[in-house]
Formats: sequence, C-alpha cells, structure tokens
Amino acid sequence: MKIQMFMYPGMTLLDLVGPLQTWNSWPDAEFQLVAEKPGSVSTDSALSVNASHTFDEAWSKPDILFVPGGPAPTFELLADQKAMKFLADRGEHAEWIGSVCTGSILLGAAGLLKGYRATSHWFARDLLTAYGAEVVHERWVIDRNRASGGGVTAGIDFGLALMAHICGEETARQSQLGMEYSPKPPFSSGTPEEARPETLEAVTAMFIAGAGDLDLAEVVSASAAKIDV
Amino acid sequence: MKIQMFMYPGMTLLDLVGPLQTWNSWPDAEFQLVAEKPGSVSTDSALSVNASHTFDEAWSKPDILFVPGGPAPTFELLADQKAMKFLADRGEHAEWIGSVCTGSILLGAAGLLKGYRATSHWFARDLLTAYGAEVVHERWVIDRNRASGGGVTAGIDFGLALMAHICGEETARQSQLGMEYSPKPPFSSGTPEEARPETLEAVTAMFIAGAGDLDLAEVVSASAAKIDV
Repeated sequence: MKIQMFMYPGMTLLDLVGPLQTWNSWPDAEFQLVAEKPGSVSTDSALSVNASHTFDEAWSKPDILFVPGGPAPTFELLADQKAMKFLADRGEHAEWIGSVCTGSILLGAAGLLKGYRATSHWFARDLLTAYGAEVVHERWVIDRNRASGGGVTAGIDFGLALMAHICGEETARQSQLGMEYSPKPPFSSGTPEEARPETLEAVTAMFIAGAGDLDLAEVVSASAAKIDV
Repeated sequence: MKIQMFMYPGMTLLDLVGPLQTWNSWPDAEFQLVAEKPGSVSTDSALSVNASHTFDEAWSKPDILFVPGGPAPTFELLADQKAMKFLADRGEHAEWIGSVCTGSILLGAAGLLKGYRATSHWFARDLLTAYGAEVVHERWVIDRNRASGGGVTAGIDFGLALMAHICGEETARQSQLGMEYSPKPPFSSGTPEEARPETLEAVTAMFIAGAGDLDLAEVVSASAAKIDV
C-alpha cells in the first residue's frame, strides 16, 4: 500500500496528521511525505515538518494520493503550476485520491473532481462547484475512487472510513481502538449549525481577515478557467 | 501565553498535534517546540518534525508545559536523565502542566503527579499508580494545575477543555468551529468497552509486540523508585 501525502508551506498540520496517524497501523503501508523541494516545510502552526521525497522522487503510481488543506497558502498554491501539474499527474495515476479540508480545492483545480461528489471545510466547500464538483454537506464522502473529508478534524473520520472502504472494517476498528478514538467534545460548536451565532460570526470574521487581500472566490474562479469543467 | 511543547524521538505525532492545532488560535499564544537537541525529531510515523528550541533555550517559566506520549520510545525515555530533569524543572515552574496519552507516564516519572488525579492511554493508565497518581477513566481530567488526556485523539478534547478552563468557553468554542470539530466516528471502537472482543485482543497483542523486550511495568517501577512517591 503506497500512500503518498502531498505537502506545501502553510498547510494545516492536523489536516495531514489526522489521516497519517489513522493510517499508521495500516498493514503493509509505506508512506511518502512529498513536497516540491527537499527539507523543511512550514505549516499553519509553529511546528515545521520534513519532506521525505520531492515531486521528482515521488512514486508515479501511488495507491493513495492524499492532499491536506489550509488557509490562505492553499489558495495561493492554485497559481503554482509545478504543484498543480504534480497533482494532476499523480491524480491521474493513483488508485485512490483523498483530501481533507480545503485540500479538495487543490484537487478541484487539478481537474480531479469534475462530476464527483466532494466536500471541504464549511467555510470553503461551496467554492468546489467552480470545478464541476457536486458539493455535499457530510463529514466525509466517497464517490468511486475519490474521497474527501470536511474541515481539519474530519481527517480522522475520513481516514477511518477510507481505510474500511479499501481494506475492511476490522482494520479500521483496530486503528480506532489504538488511537482511543471515542471523542467527547466539551462543547457543541463544531459546525455553523451547532455553533452559537456570535461564535460563527467571530470565526467567519477571523477567516476573512486571514485571507487578507486574497479574494478566495476570484482565485478559485481563475484556476477553474484553466481546466475543462 | 507561553506554550512549551516537549518533543522526543518516536513520540506519537497526533498526541502533539491535537493540542497544538487546538491551541493555534489561542489569542496571544507563543509556542516553543522543545527537544534535547536542535533539528529534526522522529515520530511514530513516517513524518519527522523540527524542534524550535533546545532544553537550554526553553523558557524557564512557561505558562503551559505540554508532554505528548507514544509507544516504547516513551518508556525508554524514563531512563534519560536529561529529559527527566528538564521535565521536573519546567514542571516545577510552569503555571499549567498537561499531557496526552502516555505523556502522563513521563510527568509521573518526573514526580509531577503525586497526589493528583490523572489519566493516560487505556493500555497504560493503570501504571500511573506507581507514581502516586489517582487514575481516572475519563477522556480528560483537570486537577488543580495538572491536566491530562486519554490516548492519542483525546488531545483535541483535552486541548479544548484546558483552553476553556484557562481563558473561557467562547475561545474554545471558536477553536472548535474553526477546526470543524463535530466528530462522527464511522464505528464504535474507541475504547476497550466499546470495541469488539476480537478487536481488543488484536490491538492488545499489537501493543505487547510493539513493546518488544521492554517490560513496561518494570521500567515504570524502576523510574518510580527514583522519586518520592
């Protein structure tokens, strides 16, 4: 099982680590942590991580190609032709293609979600329609060989669901027990529907501020214009 | 808010990243990712991470000292005098002390849990009694200025609960919404009580095999003999 995980500066760390930890007990799995350049890759947190392989060294036909999301840097990556070309190429040859959070925006821009059901972070998921995807409001969705999860923490549910889909429920159940995944959120505040109105307003304002001068709908639209949707 | 996160080779990556991502939106937080040596730190997965500071460079009085757990390497660290001395020293001066998973074993061996209620991964939590801790079977527990979470994924619940405890519920609710933390595990298999008997048997066997020649109860007992319990 060749699992290839795509990385880029500024990505949301837990988007990557949720599935990585979930799949860590996958029997016979090998992992590549792939970035454009060798060495350290920054994240949205104070912790930087290290690429194991560059684009040129990455398996040409992985079993899973996985893409994490993130805030503004994810949308800035839409203009990075090398990165988008890498995703389009590996996506064409991978057995399975997965994303968490706004990782699905990158897959969409690489032309990999046209005609597929997909999801993303609640703040960004409607943007996926620009790439010809059918947006669903689920924690995760698997449509043929494309799987996507919602925002950040959804990567654990997504990871277990895809693992069960590919190699059976018992393997996923063992991973779940190993990670003691019996969540007990102290509050009910994980979706716009569950959150208090003032919480939703504050977080939405933070995300808009975090985008800075970047008009997300505009960069998505510009990237969609480059592919056949 | 000075948040100091302790790292060591072979730690479980999600033990660290769950709280780190949860606290990433903490207003005015600064982070130190501290390891004995500068540079890259291995984890229990294929992804290595980078220390931002060494023991010598680490704040002497952090607001939070946080310690992640892991498999065998965590128990091997009990014999590392430099690491244990660092934890005992920063634990004495920190406002808050936190752990996820078997990170509490390290805190216990540093003499920081005597007379405190604490928890750990289900596979290891009963070992905490050797350090004079009162073991509780909860997802997380906060006793005075000591907070601990259960295994691996408990770090997200733990992180939100401690954040709310220190700086108020609304801040934690905003972090929860930002991370879209509305978990939907595909199976009920996250605790020994919830799991199928054959799943529990398989995972227990994997953990025992993972410990190799290391007798966990023995190394815990040897480390407890060095402190006043």
